Amino acid sequence: MTVIKRHIYLKKKTLKEAEAASADVAKLIRLKTETIPVIHSLGRVIAEPLFAKISSPSFHCAAMDGIAVKAETTYGAAEESPKTLAIGRQAVFVNTGNPVPEGMNAVIMIEDVHIIDSDRVEIREGAHPWQHVRSIGEDLIATEMVFPENHKVTAYDIGALLSSGYQEVNVRKKPRVLILPTGSELREPDPSHSTRPDFISGIIESNSYVLSGLITEDGGTPVRNPIVKDDPVKIKGALLSKIEESELILIIAGSSAGSEDYTRSIIEELGEVLVHGVSMMPGKPTLIGKVKDRSIIGIPGYPVSAVIAYERLVRPILYRSLHVMMPERPKIKVFPTKKLPSKLGTEEFLRVKVGKVGEKFFATPLPRGSGVITSLTRADGIIRIPTHSEGLEENEETEVELLRPVEEIENTLVMVGSHDLTLDILANFLGRLYPPLFFSSNHVGSLGGLLAIQKGFCHIAGAHLLDPETGEYNFPYIRQYLKGIEVKVIHLVYREQGLIVRRGNPKEIKGLKDLLRKDISFINRQKGSGTRILLDHLLKNLSLDSNQIKGYEKEEFTHMAVASAVASGAMDAGLGILSAAKAIGLDFIPVGTERYDLIIPSFYFEGENIQKVLETIRSQEFKTMVSQMGGYDVSRTGEELNE
Amino acid sequence: MTVIKRHIYLKKKTLKEAEAASADVAKLIRLKTETIPVIHSLGRVIAEPLFAKISSPSFHCAAMDGIAVKAETTYGAAEESPKTLAIGRQAVFVNTGNPVPEGMNAVIMIEDVHIIDSDRVEIREGAHPWQHVRSIGEDLIATEMVFPENHKVTAYDIGALLSSGYQEVNVRKKPRVLILPTGSELREPDPSHSTRPDFISGIIESNSYVLSGLITEDGGTPVRNPIVKDDPVKIKGALLSKIEESELILIIAGSSAGSEDYTRSIIEELGEVLVHGVSMMPGKPTLIGKVKDRSIIGIPGYPVSAVIAYERLVRPILYRSLHVMMPERPKIKVFPTKKLPSKLGTEEFLRVKVGKVGEKFFATPLPRGSGVITSLTRADGIIRIPTHSEGLEENEETEVELLRPVEEIENTLVMVGSHDLTLDILANFLGRLYPPLFFSSNHVGSLGGLLAIQKGFCHIAGAHLLDPETGEYNFPYIRQYLKGIEVKVIHLVYREQGLIVRRGNPKEIKGLKDLLRKDISFINRQKGSGTRILLDHLLKNLSLDSNQIKGYEKEEFTHMAVASAVASGAMDAGLGILSAAKAIGLDFIPVGTERYDLIIPSFYFEGENIQKVLETIRSQEFKTMVSQMGGYDVSRTGEELNE
Repeated sequence: MTVIKRHIYLKKKTLKEAEAASADVAKLIRLKTETIPVIHSLGRVIAEPLFAKISSPSFHCAAMDGIAVKAETTYGAAEESPKTLAIGRQAVFVNTGNPVPEGMNAVIMIEDVHIIDSDRVEIREGAHPWQHVRSIGEDLIATEMVFPENHKVTAYDIGALLSSGYQEVNVRKKPRVLILPTGSELREPDPSHSTRPDFISGIIESNSYVLSGLITEDGGTPVRNPIVKDDPVKIKGALLSKIEESELILIIAGSSAGSEDYTRSIIEELGEVLVHGVSMMPGKPTLIGKVKDRSIIGIPGYPVSAVIAYERLVRPILYRSLHVMMPERPKIKVFPTKKLPSKLGTEEFLRVKVGKVGEKFFATPLPRGSGVITSLTRADGIIRIPTHSEGLEENEETEVELLRPVEEIENTLVMVGSHDLTLDILANFLGRLYPPLFFSSNHVGSLGGLLAIQKGFCHIAGAHLLDPETGEYNFPYIRQYLKGIEVKVIHLVYREQGLIVRRGNPKEIKGLKDLLRKDISFINRQKGSGTRILLDHLLKNLSLDSNQIKGYEKEEFTHMAVASAVASGAMDAGLGILSAAKAIGLDFIPVGTERYDLIIPSFYFEGENIQKVLETIRSQEFKTMVSQMGGYDVSRTGEELNE
Repeated sequence: MTVIKRHIYLKKKTLKEAEAASADVAKLIRLKTETIPVIHSLGRVIAEPLFAKISSPSFHCAAMDGIAVKAETTYGAAEESPKTLAIGRQAVFVNTGNPVPEGMNAVIMIEDVHIIDSDRVEIREGAHPWQHVRSIGEDLIATEMVFPENHKVTAYDIGALLSSGYQEVNVRKKPRVLILPTGSELREPDPSHSTRPDFISGIIESNSYVLSGLITEDGGTPVRNPIVKDDPVKIKGALLSKIEESELILIIAGSSAGSEDYTRSIIEELGEVLVHGVSMMPGKPTLIGKVKDRSIIGIPGYPVSAVIAYERLVRPILYRSLHVMMPERPKIKVFPTKKLPSKLGTEEFLRVKVGKVGEKFFATPLPRGSGVITSLTRADGIIRIPTHSEGLEENEETEVELLRPVEEIENTLVMVGSHDLTLDILANFLGRLYPPLFFSSNHVGSLGGLLAIQKGFCHIAGAHLLDPETGEYNFPYIRQYLKGIEVKVIHLVYREQGLIVRRGNPKEIKGLKDLLRKDISFINRQKGSGTRILLDHLLKNLSLDSNQIKGYEKEEFTHMAVASAVASGAMDAGLGILSAAKAIGLDFIPVGTERYDLIIPSFYFEGENIQKVLETIRSQEFKTMVSQMGGYDVSRTGEELNE
């Protein structure tokens, strides 16, 4: 019996050890310098101390429009005893910036000068020496240091450089970073596929472009290599052909321990592996090595892992090579809205949404999957859970690194509850205001929304909870879960639920009754979900026996999971909303309508931001756009509902 | 008697009123959109809501290298009862990212798979459904909103856009900002002048390049027009020829009330002036108007005024036109090291250096002159003194907007005292360390340094205070001013003072004795300065009568002012340091040596940063560089001195 070849991680390193190795390989980089025009030097790093070549101003000059005089000549002039000065000899007309003639030492503003004739002017107040004169070197004195080396040029600095006589400046070259995406399953982002909403084979290679953006922001020059297949010869070839012209090489994917992961063996063969495997999550399969005095980083293939590995272990290399202090992200204190367990022995970087509700900032975790790039694009911040911690309790104060400016977070309405596409439309409308109002929706189901209000975690809950006893929506649940909390209920939409069936509806399903047919298999939603409650309610009303539905006991947790079970051909039908069916090109047979409301604590209701929400959903433009999506009824949208 | 023509400001507006006018003209801008590749969209603003074109992943795919199976087939497999699966029918080899074949729903890692032969594999553990499978839409579901309009693209976002099927994206065009520098006294920064350290006629036009940098950072496209002379016909011509292709026009200078200030009359003639004169400092002569539905801002000509006017009144226009929230600078609490008086009725923007000494952040004002660009480039922050305030008292807590990251400020050593060029060299050496150690020197004279230690405002004082009674340096003053404060005294350099005389020394001055000659005029330093104390001491030692020195009573306040008095031809000689003479190409006749020491409170002495300073000044490299400058003796540099 053969056991397939398998790589094993070198002894996994802690993040701290990996950071030390990253600092070590950074020292391999010696950036050359280049001379560029000052006017193009914004953001570049000065390579040598710069001493002023000229003074600024480089002569005594007029700070005002007027006449230059010798102050001593003007003494004694007053309202009752004006003094007459001869133009040319005692007074010379100057404009701002003109040299003050030799022997003169003051300027009188033109507003205070009375012209008698072409030869004479009259003044009614004396000037004191150096009045309205910018003396030589007032701003910069020739030979003084304008900037030390390693100074990063700001827009202001361009002014000081030009004024001190520099037109060109010697700066560090930007570090060139070669990015080598590897993987046989990858495909280049190809315009020809852009409008095909159906199945596309291969995974779109996007990591290299994300890393390129980050490298650019961090002062480097990214150089992307086309995708290389999982073939050690090809990977080695690509690496060696460009290693000389790069300061740093990132090999994406292939640093894990699978059979097709070649990065480690290649680096071992050509150079040295310092780190293989880091106790952090995401980002474990990271490799640090060197080949021919070049630093090589093996970047994990999953998009979030790639970003975390880059930010923790590559970014510091770029700043160190440029000799610039790495900027830190702003940090604030937050309270988790739920328990955040974490594995002991692993440094975890948890992406969270952050909202300010009342006086506190709350953090809600996003999906932890390292393949979920939207867990980064939707994140407001990152909570770092240290290696020795088993996680955080709900409401246990902690620190978050912010990915967005805190002003934006403070101007964000936090919605928790059931997801609906109209919330995206609402968010988009609010973002059109100026300053934009941000709308953050966290999807934890209708009941989760009510519980979030109870705990003070949100401004708005979104719910479609049917009480099967009474057929009433939301109010029975509000009475039960929000005792003592005064809330307003604003109706958002009625929406259609329906059977999601294969394209073209090959089994000719017409309604819920058909689910009882022997040739139909069904995929259900989980108990307690709004959709499951609706299904049971509809079946009861139609006197249909759920025991006769093949698959009634099989549960999925989202509309989309139901839709994809149907799309895969495993099941014939499921209950869900139109947008899930449209998403993967399935047919939809409406079976019922449900009410989706916004529930808002009265405490926030009169606030300016909530009022903007009401104005928006009550606008004709919003209602028209929602109607056009299909599956929605906006006839009562925006009404305040009462029990 | 004729009174010269003079413009008058329209009724000056408060900054708040001017901001409202700026917000008004911003509404004139309607940016077009353009379609660009996603991979070039970093930092651009999305012009329409984007809904995912495809799901990501767009099929169920393997999350690991291994075999795809139907979970149900594997149930029951265990260490003691392995299960054999037929390759092809029951198990299919997959690599990470490969599609999971139809009918299968789990992946078993290759590490857990035993290959029996080419037809069969063995497993010793069952798989649960969807194990190691990334299901369709796990990251993004087709049709869901990926980003709302007005979203600014981050590096992460590029990944989400590519993964959701976008290769191109519709973004707002960058606002085009025409910059029109005006002024007959200006000259283009001209490379042919770059190495001439002597008198250069004309003022280098740098404002347009500073503004270009700021506009670029704020998301606009600057378009610089060449300098236009103070001629209303030419200014009007330049404006009208490019107005159509610009969203916003900045006319630099000419918005003041002088006779050559044409901006207001031009805008009045062609359109409308909304604001002329704003009660802020710097930045008063700012104008806001419109011509042909284009926004026009008249920017003051002084560099600091130009920046403040831009940041307060133009920057918000750019962000509003792009529909992006304007980022705010971080703010911290600081304590002024001296009283900061301010004019009632004027909003003042005071540039300050900020240092952290002990637990407190201190702010020291930089020169207020609006012509001093280095008051911005050397600033760590800006204190805003509101219009209704007469200023701040020493040590009165206030808020500062930071221009540098707070981490840099926290890693900055604060030196207060007499200026010396070797401090620049020291700063440069410390900046070579990694992370760089910053060195901020504030020049208020030797005694000012000792007082700063007394008040706890600095880590280091720099002084060259001679006690004429004893001939001793610094210690007598330390005894007098720093009672009860334990300090260490570290010798920095001996430096030469000498007579600064015209180039070529036409009057053949050989030493102090020549100052008594009838044909020699002298320019003195102010009483109490280290240099004046030294002069009096030297004259006394040589038994020379200061009453016989022509000009002994004329005082200047800096080495440089002395040097320029000599350079202008008004005076024949002054006492100063070599670098001041070298700065404007004068001759230097050494007459004496003085001791310059660093005085450091013992409390800070053992700190890591001070130790780095000691290491640096004791290094051969530092001493060599200082020696090469000329005028310095480093034989005892770095020694700790005792009384």
